[in-house]
Amino acid sequence: MAVYTDVAAEDLAAFLAGYELGELLAYKGIAEGVENSNFLLHTDRGYFILTLYEKRVAADDLPFFLGLMEHLAARGLNCPQPVKHRDGQVLGRLAGRPAAIVTFLDGMWIRRPSPGHCGAVGEALAQLHLAGADFPLRRANALSVAGWRPLYRAAQAKNADRVQPGLTDALAAELAQLESAWPRDLSQGVIHADLFPDNVFFLHDRLSGLIDFYFACTDTLAYDLAICLNAWCFETDHSYNVTKGRALLQAYAGKRPLSDDEQRQLPVLCRGAALRFLLTRLVDWLDVPAGALVRPKDPMEYFRKLRFHQTIGSARDYGFD
Amino acid sequence: MAVYTDVAAEDLAAFLAGYELGELLAYKGIAEGVENSNFLLHTDRGYFILTLYEKRVAADDLPFFLGLMEHLAARGLNCPQPVKHRDGQVLGRLAGRPAAIVTFLDGMWIRRPSPGHCGAVGEALAQLHLAGADFPLRRANALSVAGWRPLYRAAQAKNADRVQPGLTDALAAELAQLESAWPRDLSQGVIHADLFPDNVFFLHDRLSGLIDFYFACTDTLAYDLAICLNAWCFETDHSYNVTKGRALLQAYAGKRPLSDDEQRQLPVLCRGAALRFLLTRLVDWLDVPAGALVRPKDPMEYFRKLRFHQTIGSARDYGFD
Repeated sequence: MAVYTDVAAEDLAAFLAGYELGELLAYKGIAEGVENSNFLLHTDRGYFILTLYEKRVAADDLPFFLGLMEHLAARGLNCPQPVKHRDGQVLGRLAGRPAAIVTFLDGMWIRRPSPGHCGAVGEALAQLHLAGADFPLRRANALSVAGWRPLYRAAQAKNADRVQPGLTDALAAELAQLESAWPRDLSQGVIHADLFPDNVFFLHDRLSGLIDFYFACTDTLAYDLAICLNAWCFETDHSYNVTKGRALLQAYAGKRPLSDDEQRQLPVLCRGAALRFLLTRLVDWLDVPAGALVRPKDPMEYFRKLRFHQTIGSARDYGFD
Repeated sequence: MAVYTDVAAEDLAAFLAGYELGELLAYKGIAEGVENSNFLLHTDRGYFILTLYEKRVAADDLPFFLGLMEHLAARGLNCPQPVKHRDGQVLGRLAGRPAAIVTFLDGMWIRRPSPGHCGAVGEALAQLHLAGADFPLRRANALSVAGWRPLYRAAQAKNADRVQPGLTDALAAELAQLESAWPRDLSQGVIHADLFPDNVFFLHDRLSGLIDFYFACTDTLAYDLAICLNAWCFETDHSYNVTKGRALLQAYAGKRPLSDDEQRQLPVLCRGAALRFLLTRLVDWLDVPAGALVRPKDPMEYFRKLRFHQTIGSARDYGFD
């Protein structure tokens, strides 16, 4: 939640001259996303978002992300739409970084989602999966099962047990089980891979848009659903809210029915999703020096979610009928 | 440059119901100001800025700041105008903090100001001083000469010499001289006290507005001019640009002529302004633990400016004719 790169008004005005956006009237650094520098632009033509891609986003992946947003928007999904440069490109360069401008979406993210919000997310996720079916580009998911062991080793090397005694062993056991049990023949396609509440906008209690496609990739569709169950259906006391889970799962399946295999594998996929966020948060947590002003997100929230998923036997236990 | 307090969409919508601003359509945390949490709001009625006042701003001072913005805007100065609650108040409460909404000003701040920009700032500063003449509220300046010794003691206690050997003694000598030489009978009135480039907006190379009145107070008018000379007329190599200084001073004096005493005292006022920013930056710098992710602004920039002002004999040396 930070602006990393400052942009001078003089440089931004010169950059905008390459677009059909009229004159720059104002811009503000905004706290949106954690990986890139984002600015809200006001021009003669309205409001837009400018993103400067910082080093955590690989420049080679940008055509996938920007192309996907164009593809989904063209199929009626409400997501930011890249604005084309006069030369037809959507990717430019500003302040020494790759840069792109996208349309501004109205709407707010919901801090305390209701079952109704969870249902809307389930429906939108299925729409995204269906709309992405004919997207021609592919991008491997670096944060799926094959990416977890390097993260585990990084956490181990930084002495993860100082977060909680026994954590390293618990992670090793879970990782070994998931590597062997991970389902590899479920339906694949474009997944968002990070559809947390802050990436879903609502207006008048209706879902108004999805943002932040910078973890999107080609992977198991039902894994995306498992990520959403983790992100949307737990209470702040870390208990699972089966009413929210049912709303999300039923709404998803109403648009894209779950196969028997997907239903059966849902608990394993949920464990994997919990482990993925546990590991990345843990590495970030262990990376921060003592006394720092900014603390990363609490990794142990996902350890508690993982423990819950380990007790689950079937999709029915998540509320799926 | 940080959003300190998160506001839930649900809470913000309830807060806005007390204003005639229509429905909330979107809001974003923005990187503006360093003392408070700021959000850009989009409602049915347009774009606005919401400020939550964090602990560094005393709640008792808010009527002064907000009243001043209303007063100046009513006299034609382009600055944010507080939006009145349905009950007529401009100060509310949100997320446990005092909160106010002000109008959104178009315009951008200039990272590399030209002499033309400096002239525009000089003129606007004089207009602010004239428009503030009949503002009825008073607020003492905690960061004028009487406030520097406590800051000096804080820096001394934190071992300022680790920033530069001999710094503590140099500060002590300068402070003693300024305490004795400080002019106390120059014209007083409302001063902005922090009119740095990031608080001045330009549009099409014309000054379009002044923002951030949260250091404004009642003090020596020419001290405000000295702050602007420090903030606007030095190059990045810390050399003084006399062309910019002349532009700023002449434009100011064109609207509000400088008395003989103000001209004579300008070098002392400039030394005081440099010492004020040197001391506050130094204390912030010494406060930050080793290894922190965020470094405060470099205090030594103002030590170099102070050294320059110590060599100056008259307003003429700053470019004043």
